[in-house]
Amino acid sequence: MKLSRVSPIVTLTTDFGLVDHYVGTLKGVLLSLCPDARLVDISHEIAPYSIYSGAYTIDQAAPYFPSGTVHLVVVDPGVGTSRKPVLMEALGQYFIAPDNGVLAMIGTRDGRPRLREIANRDLWLEAPSATFHGRDVFAPVAAAIASGQATPEEVGPALTRWELLPDLDPHPVGEGRWRGKLLSVDRFGNAITNFKASEFVAVASSNFALHMGNREITEFRATFGSGAPDLCFAYFGSSGYIEVGMNQRSAAAFLEVSPGDSIGLRW
Amino acid sequence: MKLSRVSPIVTLTTDFGLVDHYVGTLKGVLLSLCPDARLVDISHEIAPYSIYSGAYTIDQAAPYFPSGTVHLVVVDPGVGTSRKPVLMEALGQYFIAPDNGVLAMIGTRDGRPRLREIANRDLWLEAPSATFHGRDVFAPVAAAIASGQATPEEVGPALTRWELLPDLDPHPVGEGRWRGKLLSVDRFGNAITNFKASEFVAVASSNFALHMGNREITEFRATFGSGAPDLCFAYFGSSGYIEVGMNQRSAAAFLEVSPGDSIGLRW
Amino acid sequence: MKLSRVSPIVTLTTDFGLVDHYVGTLKGVLLSLCPDARLVDISHEIAPYSIYSGAYTIDQAAPYFPSGTVHLVVVDPGVGTSRKPVLMEALGQYFIAPDNGVLAMIGTRDGRPRLREIANRDLWLEAPSATFHGRDVFAPVAAAIASGQATPEEVGPALTRWELLPDLDPHPVGEGRWRGKLLSVDRFGNAITNFKASEFVAVASSNFALHMGNREITEFRATFGSGAPDLCFAYFGSSGYIEVGMNQRSAAAFLEVSPGDSIGLRW
Repeated sequence: MKLSRVSPIVTLTTDFGLVDHYVGTLKGVLLSLCPDARLVDISHEIAPYSIYSGAYTIDQAAPYFPSGTVHLVVVDPGVGTSRKPVLMEALGQYFIAPDNGVLAMIGTRDGRPRLREIANRDLWLEAPSATFHGRDVFAPVAAAIASGQATPEEVGPALTRWELLPDLDPHPVGEGRWRGKLLSVDRFGNAITNFKASEFVAVASSNFALHMGNREITEFRATFGSGAPDLCFAYFGSSGYIEVGMNQRSAAAFLEVSPGDSIGLRW
Repeated sequence: MKLSRVSPIVTLTTDFGLVDHYVGTLKGVLLSLCPDARLVDISHEIAPYSIYSGAYTIDQAAPYFPSGTVHLVVVDPGVGTSRKPVLMEALGQYFIAPDNGVLAMIGTRDGRPRLREIANRDLWLEAPSATFHGRDVFAPVAAAIASGQATPEEVGPALTRWELLPDLDPHPVGEGRWRGKLLSVDRFGNAITNFKASEFVAVASSNFALHMGNREITEFRATFGSGAPDLCFAYFGSSGYIEVGMNQRSAAAFLEVSPGDSIGLRW
Repeated sequence: MKLSRVSPIVTLTTDFGLVDHYVGTLKGVLLSLCPDARLVDISHEIAPYSIYSGAYTIDQAAPYFPSGTVHLVVVDPGVGTSRKPVLMEALGQYFIAPDNGVLAMIGTRDGRPRLREIANRDLWLEAPSATFHGRDVFAPVAAAIASGQATPEEVGPALTRWELLPDLDPHPVGEGRWRGKLLSVDRFGNAITNFKASEFVAVASSNFALHMGNREITEFRATFGSGAPDLCFAYFGSSGYIEVGMNQRSAAAFLEVSPGDSIGLRW
């Protein structure tokens, strides 16, 4: 923890995109208020307003960061409304975000995160705008935590629960039948389901059928290279979930599926 | 200032995009010549050759950076021609760019910037190319300033004026009627006008009409959340300008407008 | 070298794109295992699976980085198959990549690079996935080299040759006639050939004809600004190769050419 005080890491995950000045402006605020911060982009290409994608992205990346890392997560369709800005302590790290579900997966992964409302306006920029709380609220608080200028207690009062996301986990719909959904489609067209490999490990070694789009996937492979060019197969992804892919080809385009789509699993 | 000598911040704003090696190459030059530089990307997705977008982007982000920051701004359609490379001192920071208007807004914001021509070829890379002055001229000079290896005086002779951008400010066209233009459209489809909120503050509390595309905007809202889904409304943006937006929908697509378009304001 | 031990530079070049969490996750691993690393993005927008583009990109950027820099290059269509992960020492720097040709141009530029197989699994993350060796193999080894926790010798056994790329250099096809190919098309539409300016320097001052698409380019210019708006011309690019461009217009779109296309040169 001492090390992170000396040269703190602050990551950024937003739906701001990389064309506009918004990300650069956030970084200016962070460096002005925490001059020795080391800034790390996780992604700024979260689909606009997509709380699910933001939640999945930070949940995948954060476990690989050192303890004490401060994560700024700004996917905030309700900016300026009554949704609360929060600080979550989880996985030995800090997460600063709107309480709109974007921290739901991190909170669940930790199991017992500590949550506070960002209520102390002394930590905000003066005269905050109604539309850019990333700059005026979240970044200054992240800088205050990263620099040690504020303790979590000084940020605001404890909250006892945080906003969840509906339908995040698969649910049984009959004997050996489950309903889940597509969490994400990555750049290569791999389709990441919400079936955890650790809970559905039998898929690797028994008969199964995944229903996605109008197709049925019944093959399992350990690696991409072992898939024939036209074969759409399931595998245990680096995400920890069952994924569906093809060898150097987009499975999602082949299956015509998108994030949020419903998936059936039978086995 | 002492701190920035110890670990200087150098930001990058270019129209190079993120696909090619150009940005990485710039960073290599900066780190070779100023080994302790901390590099911060503002945007590399300025529309190719768009001096207006570059000027707006750096003008929005720079005020949030610490004093002593060195900003490299390379939007340079005239590379290899007679346009001058310049160093501008403004807002307590350094700006290194071609003198083609891309620093016009920063210069105006400061009011009395100091300008020098980058004439000292000892600071350039050897055998500079005719097409990549970002690598061969601007980056080495930015590194020399950031590292303290060169003073501004050593960069080249003072200039008394800098290239401006035409039509940057709105102008009156009659009793209570103004003509302005669209500065930018952001990722969310918000349309940023060049009407400064501080100069047109009455818009928030009186009847007004903004003509954009073939539509008229007559509603004002304080936040996005308070706009009905199909309402296109004006608000005071985080940019300091009057912006036009919709709640979780692209106003620019709805209005069919693009940066540079003419706007009428009546009130 | 001492400096790079104190605060090592690790660059990243991948085809992961900027939408997904993959790049952020790599950075988390690097910072967890080498806490003082300074991370520099070269490009994450290498076309998916495009070994040629990855090879060209790292070969263009790396020569501008300080000695001792560690370059992580992950364009890895064969992840999980028998292609070897390797460490190459070249240009006084370190390159960590799959041995699939992506280091072919760096190896050739150096002439006598030293190569090792990344065989020491103690340096990998525990329980590596079959699909994300960037996270589980390449990043931990890069961190070990950057932090000094492992010497190159400890990474694995020396290899005597590395994977090359076919057709990387132009070849003669008759008296004063050569056949080459298009290495890259940049954001501005400039078409970068594989004809090295240093080997074809006479093109600048004699009659020549470049056949690309269905057109013939016979004009040479020193700078963009000196080209008439509709003129498609050859120039010695900042890449060190002969490039073909137009003044503020895409030559590649005009010529209807793409990376990998065949080019004829007569002179």
